[in-house]
Amino acid sequence: MAPLEFWFDFASTYSYPAALRVEQLARDAGVDVVWKPFLLGPVFAKAGMKDSPFNLYPVRGQYMWRDLERICARHQIPWKRPSLSRFPANSVLAAKVALVALEHPQGPDFVRGVYRANFAEDRDISQPDVLGDVLQAVGLNPREILAQLEVPEQKGKLRAQTEEAIRRGYFGAPTFWIDGELFFGQDRMLEAIEWAQRARS
Amino acid sequence: MAPLEFWFDFASTYSYPAALRVEQLARDAGVDVVWKPFLLGPVFAKAGMKDSPFNLYPVRGQYMWRDLERICARHQIPWKRPSLSRFPANSVLAAKVALVALEHPQGPDFVRGVYRANFAEDRDISQPDVLGDVLQAVGLNPREILAQLEVPEQKGKLRAQTEEAIRRGYFGAPTFWIDGELFFGQDRMLEAIEWAQRARS
Repeated sequence: MAPLEFWFDFASTYSYPAALRVEQLARDAGVDVVWKPFLLGPVFAKAGMKDSPFNLYPVRGQYMWRDLERICARHQIPWKRPSLSRFPANSVLAAKVALVALEHPQGPDFVRGVYRANFAEDRDISQPDVLGDVLQAVGLNPREILAQLEVPEQKGKLRAQTEEAIRRGYFGAPTFWIDGELFFGQDRMLEAIEWAQRARS
Repeated sequence: MAPLEFWFDFASTYSYPAALRVEQLARDAGVDVVWKPFLLGPVFAKAGMKDSPFNLYPVRGQYMWRDLERICARHQIPWKRPSLSRFPANSVLAAKVALVALEHPQGPDFVRGVYRANFAEDRDISQPDVLGDVLQAVGLNPREILAQLEVPEQKGKLRAQTEEAIRRGYFGAPTFWIDGELFFGQDRMLEAIEWAQRARS
C-alpha cells in the first residue's frame, strides 16, 4: 500500500486549505498521509521562476486571493488575508521546526496550527515566539523542540527534502506524491487520494 | 439569471476536457452556457508572459501532459497527444470560424469538433481544410461560413473579445465568467456552474 505524501511550504496559500483537509479525507479513504515540508524558493528558482508566480504575474496573484477566499468559504475554513507586506512569508524556520515536530504524534496538529496562524490569525510565522505558541498549544515543549534544530542530523534535512522535490520535478505546492505519481495543487487532492487507494489494491 | 460564460482558446490543452463537458454539466444544473473564443497570446503578453507557461517552465509543461492524460482517462474523453512540433497550435483561424459558427445552433458542436480534431485526432487545426471538415461534419456549409470571415462586422470581433478578456484580468484558459465573478481552470468548472446556479436565485 502506497502512502500519500503531502508536500507543502508554509508560505503557500493554496496549501492552507489542503493542509487542513487532507488528513481527514485520506483517513476516510483508508489512506496514510506522510507530511513533507519543503521550500518553494529553490524549487521556483530551478523551474526558472525568480519569485512566486503570484508576484511575477500580479493578475494571477489578484485572482489567487479571491479564489482562496472562495475555497475557504466553500469548506468552512477560517480565512483572513495576511497583512504582512512581504509575500510569500518567510517559512524557513517554520519548516525546520515542523520536521522536528513531525517526529512526534502532534506533528500534523502543529502543521495545521502554523497554517491557521498564518492564514486565519494573521500572525507572522517567521517569528520563533509564534511557532513556540503553536508548539505549546499542541502539547509540544517549545524549548525542547527548538533545541533539536541544532542537532547535526536535523541540520541538512530541509535542504535534502527540497532537493528531492527538485529531482522529482515539483514546481509548486501543495504537491501530492504517490509512489512516483505526481499531483499538483489543492484541487487535485481527491484525485491523489483515489490514486493512493487504487495503488493499494 | 446569470449565464455561464465559457472562455476558451482552441490551443489550450486544459480547455479541451472542459469544452467537451461544460454544456452537459451546465444543462443538468439548469444553467445556460455562452461560448466565448478568445486568443491567449495577447492575454499572456499582457500578464507578463512571453509564451505559454508550459513553454516558459518546461517542468510545468511536462506535468501538464501527464495531468491532462489522467483527466481525460477519468472522464472517458478520447485523448491523443498532438504530434505538432509547434505548441501551442495556431488557433487564430479556428477562433474566427468559431465566432461565425456560434451564430448557428451547431456552434457548440463545431467547438467540440475542433477540440477533438486537435486533441483526439491529432489534426492541425490551423488548416482551413481541417476546419472545413469539422464544419461539414456538424452540418454547416464550409464555403458559406468561411465567406463570413470577410464581412466587416466579423473582422474585429475576435480582437474585441480578446481585449475584453484582458480588461477583465484573465490570464489563461479555460476561464469561466458569471456576472463579474471569475473562475480559472477546468478544475473550477463545477464551482463556476454552482456559482451561476446561485446567481440565478
